[in-house]
Amino acid sequence: MRIVGVRQTQGSGVMVAALAEDNAEVTLIASLADFWADPAGHLSRPPAGPTFDTAELEHVPPVLPDARVLCVGLNYHDHVAEGSYRDEALPAHPTLFARWTQSLTVDGAEIPVPANEQGLDWEGEVVAWIGAPLIDASPDEALAAVIGYSAFNDLTARTAQKRTSQWTLGKNADRSGPIGPMVPAAEVGDLRDGLRLQTRVNGATMQDASTKQMMYPVGETLSQISHTLSLRPGDLLATGTPAGVGYARTPPQFLRPGDIVEVEIERLGVLRNAVVANEQRFTAATTR
Amino acid sequence: MRIVGVRQTQGSGVMVAALAEDNAEVTLIASLADFWADPAGHLSRPPAGPTFDTAELEHVPPVLPDARVLCVGLNYHDHVAEGSYRDEALPAHPTLFARWTQSLTVDGAEIPVPANEQGLDWEGEVVAWIGAPLIDASPDEALAAVIGYSAFNDLTARTAQKRTSQWTLGKNADRSGPIGPMVPAAEVGDLRDGLRLQTRVNGATMQDASTKQMMYPVGETLSQISHTLSLRPGDLLATGTPAGVGYARTPPQFLRPGDIVEVEIERLGVLRNAVVANEQRFTAATTR
Repeated sequence: MRIVGVRQTQGSGVMVAALAEDNAEVTLIASLADFWADPAGHLSRPPAGPTFDTAELEHVPPVLPDARVLCVGLNYHDHVAEGSYRDEALPAHPTLFARWTQSLTVDGAEIPVPANEQGLDWEGEVVAWIGAPLIDASPDEALAAVIGYSAFNDLTARTAQKRTSQWTLGKNADRSGPIGPMVPAAEVGDLRDGLRLQTRVNGATMQDASTKQMMYPVGETLSQISHTLSLRPGDLLATGTPAGVGYARTPPQFLRPGDIVEVEIERLGVLRNAVVANEQRFTAATTR
Repeated sequence: MRIVGVRQTQGSGVMVAALAEDNAEVTLIASLADFWADPAGHLSRPPAGPTFDTAELEHVPPVLPDARVLCVGLNYHDHVAEGSYRDEALPAHPTLFARWTQSLTVDGAEIPVPANEQGLDWEGEVVAWIGAPLIDASPDEALAAVIGYSAFNDLTARTAQKRTSQWTLGKNADRSGPIGPMVPAAEVGDLRDGLRLQTRVNGATMQDASTKQMMYPVGETLSQISHTLSLRPGDLLATGTPAGVGYARTPPQFLRPGDIVEVEIERLGVLRNAVVANEQRFTAATTR
């Protein structure tokens, strides 16, 4: 099953729906609020709502507006080794930064390069969706609360990211976080067993790794987070990117208008987005 | 005028309202979505909705769930000089970090010390509320879009904040961001003219500064942000804290259960919160 977010008309409430195998149809499940009030219950039953042609509906991430998107910054040894932090000791804890939900978008969306950037950089990753409240949880409890996973592209405005010690601005450019359909955790298994993750730019492979290379497992990271802030159903954890990003290449390479970037993750599918010019920020009706 | 958020019953929609001079009554203005669709229009008219006793209603921040809370990390010379970054060059740009709206709460709320922390640290600051869309805006356009200001306490879980290079986790503990009523910008004037800002712990003054000491003016900071991400009405900018925080003292001092922390800012009022134990995270019905 693949879970998506849809709207029947712009401005109407977001519904959570199941996407058919052939992508042609979606079957409604529940409103966003109802789905995240009992995600395990909804996933345990076949979707019972009306069915629509996929093309009839606007597609949006099935994410609560006030969900927190927690992102691990340095989670693959080979990405640490290629980047700005290569001369520092490996951190003993996951390095966590924030995205706001307003930066998220979907497969197929056009992503603008912000002003004052040479381009955008790609970062293919797996996102975990939290399905139950977590307060001071153990790693096992936390991992058991993960209800699903998605492919994610943590597209980064490197100039803004590296202007100061804090990465926040460069990680929240408009529509810079395309996220794929959510696949239930039961169909995905454990990331530690290894899912292949690939990122391609205009067809050329830039990242090719396995999630078994992650340094900080999902359960441990969520456990640590839950000792400071209480996680709620619908919160997300982006689990970090492996080696092969653009800024670490010789010479550096960035996504420019006209480029196509794809993130493909075993069992989670392909996320494909076109990059457009900064001017598109002015004409877009919404930021999603 | 002072603008607050209220709910008639738990779970019902948040309404934006005006708080009377004597705090005894609130008069409803509009739903959260309607208010932020035209904040300048709503502030230009006297509130026309029904009036309630203040104590009858639940108080919440008048903040959109998907608003972005952008925070300036190092904005007062004397705070830079007292802290961990004192031996580094002053950054040429504002250091921006993120809060999620789930971390916000109101005057009077009880704030839990998270697990694994010696206590919470205080950071009195001014928050600016954005009232108009800003894309690639000039500093003057950006400053003109500020619709109001509030007192804010950027309560910090220092252990979590300083565990890695990124401050996010320690800046988003449950209910760690009490924010006061919004005062319209026209009644506040320009922060560069200087508002006195004081923070008190159990009555003892810990911070006493003027907003005229800020290094990065609000207009310049918002302009810079708007070149990467498009700001929307309802987004917030926390403008940073002056010297006098707890971790920089000899010996360090932190807020523990039973302590009372107050932030008082000229023209913006007093924000008063009690600190409670981590166990309160389990019994709280909501995170706000």
